[in-house]
Amino acid sequence: MQLLKKRILQDGKCYEGGILKVDSFINHQMDPGLMKSVAVEFVRRFASTKVNKIMTIEASGIAPAIMTGYLMNLPVVFAKKKSPKTIQNALSTTVHSFTKDRDYEVVISSDFLTPDDHVLFVDDFLAYGNAALGVIDLIKQSGATLVGMGFIIEKAFQNGRQILEEQGVRVESLAIIEDLSNCSIKIRD
Amino acid sequence: MQLLKKRILQDGKCYEGGILKVDSFINHQMDPGLMKSVAVEFVRRFASTKVNKIMTIEASGIAPAIMTGYLMNLPVVFAKKKSPKTIQNALSTTVHSFTKDRDYEVVISSDFLTPDDHVLFVDDFLAYGNAALGVIDLIKQSGATLVGMGFIIEKAFQNGRQILEEQGVRVESLAIIEDLSNCSIKIRD
Repeated sequence: MQLLKKRILQDGKCYEGGILKVDSFINHQMDPGLMKSVAVEFVRRFASTKVNKIMTIEASGIAPAIMTGYLMNLPVVFAKKKSPKTIQNALSTTVHSFTKDRDYEVVISSDFLTPDDHVLFVDDFLAYGNAALGVIDLIKQSGATLVGMGFIIEKAFQNGRQILEEQGVRVESLAIIEDLSNCSIKIRD
Repeated sequence: MQLLKKRILQDGKCYEGGILKVDSFINHQMDPGLMKSVAVEFVRRFASTKVNKIMTIEASGIAPAIMTGYLMNLPVVFAKKKSPKTIQNALSTTVHSFTKDRDYEVVISSDFLTPDDHVLFVDDFLAYGNAALGVIDLIKQSGATLVGMGFIIEKAFQNGRQILEEQGVRVESLAIIEDLSNCSIKIRD
């Protein structure tokens, strides 16, 4: 997706330790026009599948997910990163965050993830794939079917794709970062 | 907004203690078509103002905010409910949650909230107004100008509007809940 790749090279910032900051247009401040273009691309890539629900995790997955759901005319559900008292019929799983070096609980109500659902999961980043594995666990618990996973940005050198593909998951990423060494951003053509 | 009021009466659930659950279409599972209609109404209500940025708080404010930003062709920034290590130039404030009976920190980068910004704040609920007061504090710290605050649902009996209007803030709510006593939902005409 050329528009996205150009934007990452223009506005993305690279730091030691494989960190790519895109917080001026994706995950703190957000460019809604870009989010719509991202959603169009997800629609195109999953056009041949039978999706009837979009799923994401709070917080930075919500913008691309709601745009995708809007274009596909489908409901969007987001998993929550802690367990609110108010959630009913909760399914939960534990995810390890490498960035924050801690475990956190991810929760979703089984009222909104059911055996009838064919789910397209959408998120901003694929890195080590831990959050995505948590989502796969929630989907298994619910009896829903996972159709595929779409990410705005994949960090290829952190091997999340391999872990997901080993589970038979179709993965689509709109910009694949090959390398962030020496604080220079290398994106796959 | 008739579409929204009808939907709340149809799918909203009312519990003891003034609790209104709209988690099947607004803040856990979301209806993207409804979110677009909500955004159209915010655009209409704030049409005479000079807004150049949409602001919200994670997580359930993000969907209406990104739709509003998309329609108005403006950037959207969301405040975060904890302080990630990675946030630079952070402004922070403390908010008390009555629902959860605890304080939490709300953080935003001053890179994305500046004296040049004329901010429309968008969120799902106005209850006691505590989160909104936190947002006002962040906006004051940043030197930005608050143009107005738009909420999908206001719980009139929890008096958040009064607190905000005392600060000179223009408040627009798309559905105003008068009463939830005896677990029956009364919406203002």
